[in-house]
Amino acid sequence: LFHFRPAPAELSTSRIEAFSDGVFAIAITLLVLEIKIPHPADGQTASFDLAHALMRQWPNYFAYVLSFVTIGIYWANHHYIFKLYRKTSHCFILLNIVFLMAISFLPFPTAVLGDFIADLDHARAAVVFYSSGLLLPAVTWFLMWIYAVRTRIVDERLEPAFVRRLTWQYMLSVIFYLTAVALAFFHAISSLVLCVGLTLLYLLPPPAPEYRPAE
Amino acid sequence: LFHFRPAPAELSTSRIEAFSDGVFAIAITLLVLEIKIPHPADGQTASFDLAHALMRQWPNYFAYVLSFVTIGIYWANHHYIFKLYRKTSHCFILLNIVFLMAISFLPFPTAVLGDFIADLDHARAAVVFYSSGLLLPAVTWFLMWIYAVRTRIVDERLEPAFVRRLTWQYMLSVIFYLTAVALAFFHAISSLVLCVGLTLLYLLPPPAPEYRPAE
Amino acid sequence: LFHFRPAPAELSTSRIEAFSDGVFAIAITLLVLEIKIPHPADGQTASFDLAHALMRQWPNYFAYVLSFVTIGIYWANHHYIFKLYRKTSHCFILLNIVFLMAISFLPFPTAVLGDFIADLDHARAAVVFYSSGLLLPAVTWFLMWIYAVRTRIVDERLEPAFVRRLTWQYMLSVIFYLTAVALAFFHAISSLVLCVGLTLLYLLPPPAPEYRPAE
Amino acid sequence: LFHFRPAPAELSTSRIEAFSDGVFAIAITLLVLEIKIPHPADGQTASFDLAHALMRQWPNYFAYVLSFVTIGIYWANHHYIFKLYRKTSHCFILLNIVFLMAISFLPFPTAVLGDFIADLDHARAAVVFYSSGLLLPAVTWFLMWIYAVRTRIVDERLEPAFVRRLTWQYMLSVIFYLTAVALAFFHAISSLVLCVGLTLLYLLPPPAPEYRPAE
Repeated sequence: LFHFRPAPAELSTSRIEAFSDGVFAIAITLLVLEIKIPHPADGQTASFDLAHALMRQWPNYFAYVLSFVTIGIYWANHHYIFKLYRKTSHCFILLNIVFLMAISFLPFPTAVLGDFIADLDHARAAVVFYSSGLLLPAVTWFLMWIYAVRTRIVDERLEPAFVRRLTWQYMLSVIFYLTAVALAFFHAISSLVLCVGLTLLYLLPPPAPEYRPAE
Repeated sequence: LFHFRPAPAELSTSRIEAFSDGVFAIAITLLVLEIKIPHPADGQTASFDLAHALMRQWPNYFAYVLSFVTIGIYWANHHYIFKLYRKTSHCFILLNIVFLMAISFLPFPTAVLGDFIADLDHARAAVVFYSSGLLLPAVTWFLMWIYAVRTRIVDERLEPAFVRRLTWQYMLSVIFYLTAVALAFFHAISSLVLCVGLTLLYLLPPPAPEYRPAE
Repeated sequence: LFHFRPAPAELSTSRIEAFSDGVFAIAITLLVLEIKIPHPADGQTASFDLAHALMRQWPNYFAYVLSFVTIGIYWANHHYIFKLYRKTSHCFILLNIVFLMAISFLPFPTAVLGDFIADLDHARAAVVFYSSGLLLPAVTWFLMWIYAVRTRIVDERLEPAFVRRLTWQYMLSVIFYLTAVALAFFHAISSLVLCVGLTLLYLLPPPAPEYRPAE
Repeated sequence: LFHFRPAPAELSTSRIEAFSDGVFAIAITLLVLEIKIPHPADGQTASFDLAHALMRQWPNYFAYVLSFVTIGIYWANHHYIFKLYRKTSHCFILLNIVFLMAISFLPFPTAVLGDFIADLDHARAAVVFYSSGLLLPAVTWFLMWIYAVRTRIVDERLEPAFVRRLTWQYMLSVIFYLTAVALAFFHAISSLVLCVGLTLLYLLPPPAPEYRPAE
């Protein structure tokens, strides 16, 4: 009797991780392209000072660092969370694509933030836009987790209390970014401080997975 | 007797998948670069409103989401179909490069669509161009499949009825995109609705592979 | 006795292949970024015709296709040739970096070709530059091969006649591209036809490796 | 008794290497995007000479080659050093992200150098900025190494003398780049010569790892 295992219909978690890794690596590296090389405007060649022009771009450097670290943390957490998944499903793969869409979009609000944060007239709109840009991956991340818990994609050997803790943590993250967006309408700098604070908070190591004792 | 297996002349399917993954991940992430940061035109600094400028870019966001999801689905389907392939050939690798060329080109028609869809004078030309951009990967995908079936690259243990079903599905896809291109000459919005509908249709999971019973 | 194998100092061929794959995939996908979205010039909004503007960009599409296929063939050949290598060395890795530098540079001469080939005054300079851009990877590829043969990086079980055949083939390739550069100074179109012909020639499958009979 | 090994909380070194490889490959390939296609300025179409315009861009080619080789060497050294690591930690992963941030930033100072090095008024500022751009990865690399040695991430079977040698080498590298930055304030060309010299120095193969004899 000739025996073989037919190829499973779904992508393995490692395939999804590899593709996601690629998107993370590209999105994080594209951030630098949004910092424009300063050049003298027409008829101002004489008064142009490169050193000052480069220094006046500090908002772009700040936005670059903030978004780079944020995407970097998402990358590390993406690997962390995929260790808790035991399988995939078609719908789960689509949710991951939507999540990656939110990550890939970040270079755009980052550039808007960098170009307008030091501009009193437009700082508010820029921070509303940037914090919304950070809200999107937080929301899609949370949806992916909820979906994974509901459809038993999450490893069933994990302690229920541990799973609940992560659910709370990811929901809180959404709430904080929502707060940052709302705050930006009233006070741009406070909202930005909140965004920076959240990124710093995520620098803390995620909790070690807790498994139920084997019976 | 010293024994060794000489390296085969052809690339393995996994090498092609890895390279294709890279191209998918980059093309999908480059889409965001085509959304330009709004800046006040010369002499309009006073009347420039960043919030409105960002909102007026909705066609770019729409084009970004549509192309991102479309490329994401092609990525998932590329892995799906490569599970049905048992080997590769030189010509097959070249066809895959032509397919990737069509995928990599998408950021350009996406940008054209985003910049001109809300412009009454140019929407028609923009949608003709964009739907043609979507036609190209559909056609090269279909050619790859036909070639793979003819040259027995497709796993021979698959049910012939299953293989025929995929052939029909991929041919229909080409016909629908051809229709979208033709429709765009008369009514841009209808054509775009068809493109969106096709993308939504492809969100459905592909059929599970059906294998002939082992004898 | 505690026993372990110390990590070897050199990168494995598979590491180099993976990194090279990344560079190939990115360079090939960046080509599209050099095609600029057409926009009406200042004060010409009324007379701007998007359809014609997109059609007038055919030189960019031509340059895109030519460079995409050329880089794609280099990618396939890079894997082909790495199957003939049995080890690496520090100098060999550096040569590979120089080769990748020549590949990564291609989007620039491709853009120059696309922007100026239809411009009678500048077509000659554009083709000289583009064919030089194609000469660079051919030269570095040839140097890598010569170095690999000399330092026994090439699998010693290969037939010497087979190795000599590849040496001749890669040298001829350099000579043809040199001819294309020289020709471009006198007749741009002939030079471009030669470049296209060479790319078509490389579409042919590389010869299957021939090994010496095991003794 | 059902037995399983819970997933470790930390990323493996190979995951970090793969992600870092992606960032290296992208940063190195993006360098070419900063070389702008020359076009005639308004009203100068008649006097525009493409050949001369391309030749006048030699500073951009020089900056491209210097940064490409520098990033390429960092890539090779990153793999070299990861062979000396036996584990990872959360903090170590964050340090690696900061290191990658410095690498990903390089296309920007490279473009500034290329655009301004031949400009007498701005060469000094451009070289200060570029050498600072090279200082950043050297500093973060050194910090990563120090951290890895202190927290025993570095393989404990390595000879202490060998580890000390690397520590000295990486510290010297920081000192040399600091010197290059300081020098740039007084004499731009000397600073640039030092940067080129350091890159050439790193072309030398790194020392083979020395292990303690097994007891």
